[in-house]
Amino acid sequence: MSSTDNPSRKKLVADWQALIRTFIRPESDSSKRALLKYMEQILFGLHEFLKEHVGITEMVGLKELSDRFKNSVIAETPEKKLEDVIKDLIEDIAPHAVNVASPYFVGHMTSAIPFFMVHLKTIVAALNQNVVKLETSKVVSIIEKQVMAKIHRLIYCRNDRFYEEHIQNSRTALGAFAEDGTLANITALWVARNNLFPAKEGFSGVEKEGIQAAYNSYGVDRCVILVSRLGHYSLQKAAGVLGIGNRNVIAVKTDNENRMSLDSLAGIIKDIRNNEPKTKILAIIGIAGATETGSIDPLYSLGRICSENRIHFHVDAAWGGPTLMSHQYGRLLRGIETADSVTIDGHKQFYMPMSAGMIFFKDPTALDAVVYHANYVNRPGSVDLGIKSISGSREANSLILDAALKIMGSQGYALLVEHGIETARAFAEEIRSRPDFELVTEPVLNILTYRIFPFPMKQEFHQSDPLRQKEIRTRLNKINRTVQRLQREAGKSFVSRTTLKVDDSPDDEIIVLRCVIMNPMTTLAILKEILNEQEDICQKTFARLGNGLQP
Amino acid sequence: MSSTDNPSRKKLVADWQALIRTFIRPESDSSKRALLKYMEQILFGLHEFLKEHVGITEMVGLKELSDRFKNSVIAETPEKKLEDVIKDLIEDIAPHAVNVASPYFVGHMTSAIPFFMVHLKTIVAALNQNVVKLETSKVVSIIEKQVMAKIHRLIYCRNDRFYEEHIQNSRTALGAFAEDGTLANITALWVARNNLFPAKEGFSGVEKEGIQAAYNSYGVDRCVILVSRLGHYSLQKAAGVLGIGNRNVIAVKTDNENRMSLDSLAGIIKDIRNNEPKTKILAIIGIAGATETGSIDPLYSLGRICSENRIHFHVDAAWGGPTLMSHQYGRLLRGIETADSVTIDGHKQFYMPMSAGMIFFKDPTALDAVVYHANYVNRPGSVDLGIKSISGSREANSLILDAALKIMGSQGYALLVEHGIETARAFAEEIRSRPDFELVTEPVLNILTYRIFPFPMKQEFHQSDPLRQKEIRTRLNKINRTVQRLQREAGKSFVSRTTLKVDDSPDDEIIVLRCVIMNPMTTLAILKEILNEQEDICQKTFARLGNGLQP
Repeated sequence: MSSTDNPSRKKLVADWQALIRTFIRPESDSSKRALLKYMEQILFGLHEFLKEHVGITEMVGLKELSDRFKNSVIAETPEKKLEDVIKDLIEDIAPHAVNVASPYFVGHMTSAIPFFMVHLKTIVAALNQNVVKLETSKVVSIIEKQVMAKIHRLIYCRNDRFYEEHIQNSRTALGAFAEDGTLANITALWVARNNLFPAKEGFSGVEKEGIQAAYNSYGVDRCVILVSRLGHYSLQKAAGVLGIGNRNVIAVKTDNENRMSLDSLAGIIKDIRNNEPKTKILAIIGIAGATETGSIDPLYSLGRICSENRIHFHVDAAWGGPTLMSHQYGRLLRGIETADSVTIDGHKQFYMPMSAGMIFFKDPTALDAVVYHANYVNRPGSVDLGIKSISGSREANSLILDAALKIMGSQGYALLVEHGIETARAFAEEIRSRPDFELVTEPVLNILTYRIFPFPMKQEFHQSDPLRQKEIRTRLNKINRTVQRLQREAGKSFVSRTTLKVDDSPDDEIIVLRCVIMNPMTTLAILKEILNEQEDICQKTFARLGNGLQP
Repeated sequence: MSSTDNPSRKKLVADWQALIRTFIRPESDSSKRALLKYMEQILFGLHEFLKEHVGITEMVGLKELSDRFKNSVIAETPEKKLEDVIKDLIEDIAPHAVNVASPYFVGHMTSAIPFFMVHLKTIVAALNQNVVKLETSKVVSIIEKQVMAKIHRLIYCRNDRFYEEHIQNSRTALGAFAEDGTLANITALWVARNNLFPAKEGFSGVEKEGIQAAYNSYGVDRCVILVSRLGHYSLQKAAGVLGIGNRNVIAVKTDNENRMSLDSLAGIIKDIRNNEPKTKILAIIGIAGATETGSIDPLYSLGRICSENRIHFHVDAAWGGPTLMSHQYGRLLRGIETADSVTIDGHKQFYMPMSAGMIFFKDPTALDAVVYHANYVNRPGSVDLGIKSISGSREANSLILDAALKIMGSQGYALLVEHGIETARAFAEEIRSRPDFELVTEPVLNILTYRIFPFPMKQEFHQSDPLRQKEIRTRLNKINRTVQRLQREAGKSFVSRTTLKVDDSPDDEIIVLRCVIMNPMTTLAILKEILNEQEDICQKTFARLGNGLQP
């Protein structure tokens, strides 16, 4: 390159040259060797590496940690050489990250991922395609359409002719990627909202005119969304964002297996029909793998109710969707094929790196309700995928999912799903067999909740009057909250905690411990260790107080 | 691990073992060597590698390409070994991706990124932290708060005490990551909407009750958003999503330098105030780097107008934000510090991998308007960043930006910004000097538009009546559309095209060629080659038709 091309280059030739190099290659061979050593560790030795360096979730030092990161000034000149920044990241930052890959980390829906996922993500970053339009993605847009069809088929099982027609059809869309399950749920309800208030004589549709005009035009006062009380909080967020109002997400009661009560649902629908002529039901949402309990709503019945009442049926299968790949457990999601839209998260049980939400629609023209064009991007009739998605620029997650499906096969994923469910069931048995614990929610999938409930307190509880029972509950909540925190701080294991309602006492909430078993390295032996540790912590902490386990 | 732990493991022990290994390491040493060879190429030889294998944007074979990707069935058993999938990706897929890293690719806001960005993304994927909550991210949440403060300070230049108070404050937030600029803009207007209709006596706020209830409670019929006609299409999308209605995004006229006309704006505001008592102005949006022209609105004046009229002032600096790091050109954004909210994209002029939108707020409590909690995640008062963001699960983009700022320094970024602007200016001169071209929009930043306007046609145009001028315009549009397409298909260079309005003839639209100069390897010499090629294509294509350059 000649140096006469550009004035700034002439002026700052030394720095400019160095800068150019950072785009292309390391500054020296020794720098390259240092980097390669680190990257090899990251690419191939990840799990051991993390295990070596990181406690599970040691909370000690959060304050000290945050005190180390209080520099609000961008340095004018480079602070560090590239390899030193990488070194810091690996030696100094990573040890204070959370070791979500540990088999002892069973508290959240984030876990170990196959090491090759990191390789795939690296390739995606290197290609740096922008899927918003064909001109910055080309083959990747085509692969995205293919992988969307594969997952659509997993859900909806339409025939060959259907997929032949739509798989590479630039006018239709079987689904879309979104940043995560929240944005996938927002997209589903955005489409449902727009299809509820389409253009008609004298009204050009809610997307164009807004909600006030839509409600006026259709004689509506409010819209509601019905979902069981175990619905993910993103549904409230969606209703808030979309202008529906989050208080209009109505929590339907659940039965004793944490599934939406069809009787309660029927009652609410009837009530609205009879008493609120100006209320519209925007959507009914079935959950396939509730965040807290892993439970699955009666999807088939919900589909029938929605179809009879012409209501949009959305299934939030962010967690449970990949269960469909297991011959043995896929049928737990029977009825999902009747859903108008389905959310599945790639970064959950597809084991993709953070983050890859996906939304699918039964009707390949459903996404037409949210089409946006612009002259400089996304021309009508093109393969530009950004025409029908809530985001604009986004990375090529489809390459990762497409490759992973080839490497794992549905059978590989099925093994993971089955391991999770069967380990959870065995763990439930183990909890039941221990006198000082109580299984609170049975695992349907690979999530269960339980709590520490020392045997003497159990005995007393069953003989007590309601007032005394309430006291015992309060005490139990304290014990469970404390043990969960102390175990997390000890840094060996991590289970999460949440708050559930009690069936027979709707005013009371109980604190439960929650396990999500998705890491194939998490064995029953490890789960037993975790229970043992909880017993130990409980004994040590509350026995000190002198018969502390008595309330 | 004992094999008695789990029933499925016993049953399928061979497959299970293989599966476990995919989580941990390659299946053999030779497999590892093959993978490492590929990854080394990806990590260190990216640019040469892409150049060797990829035409720029050859469109040939889009149909053939899509015919290759019509398999809608997930294979039951693994289709390929890991290293073969990676090999295919690199040898078979990558060559059909778009070589956005080429210095001849100057059509879009996607470009080469420094090679170390790929390393950083790899580390982020390997750590697989989920920033939705502290329990799955820990130090990363803290680093995110720090890097948000750094960019906030770049924009708002508040004092040390301000940042000391807020940088690690779990109750306040200086900004948030979003998937891209679209979601950042949606977040800004979501906050503005909620702050316009807050809770009051008898009304619990628009987020809770919805837009219908809010408008009724505040006696409002519609809300409008004012932005110049060059505003990004994501603003319409935001108004649609948020229930405002996208037709309520009012396009304000621009002056002859493509900046929002303050007179027109004042006229619209006055008109609304005088004639539409039930219309509220939700926000005025200033553009800092228009997508099509790179132009910058008069931010300082807009800030004053918004402040006087108590209107939310949002600046869409998705493109132009990083210009602030240049001492020389940062002042082009004077007034940005008066904005209530500012969008900046990390994957644009911060040269981060796809994708990393960001939204910043002057008021560290602004995001309180969109807070969501849940028991199992995001507890009130915690450092859980997912409390105040439109998405839930998301990857740790902050690690990349924080590291990049250390490696580059603001000076490194400034060099890139300055190279882009100065090369664009030199290129504009070059276009002006060629008789068969016309510069349509002068580059303020590093974006310009121009068109082919053969000299004989220019001469005729200036001597013609309006009707004849219209015919010439139509002919020119055809020429430019054709040349752009043929150049793209030839596969050596890529400029984009868009459609602009003509000042003196508002009904007419002209097709222009658009250059975005952000790749530091893009020199004036390369840009001249691109012009030469366009001249050649134009001559060859239209001369064939016999005096084809005459309209």
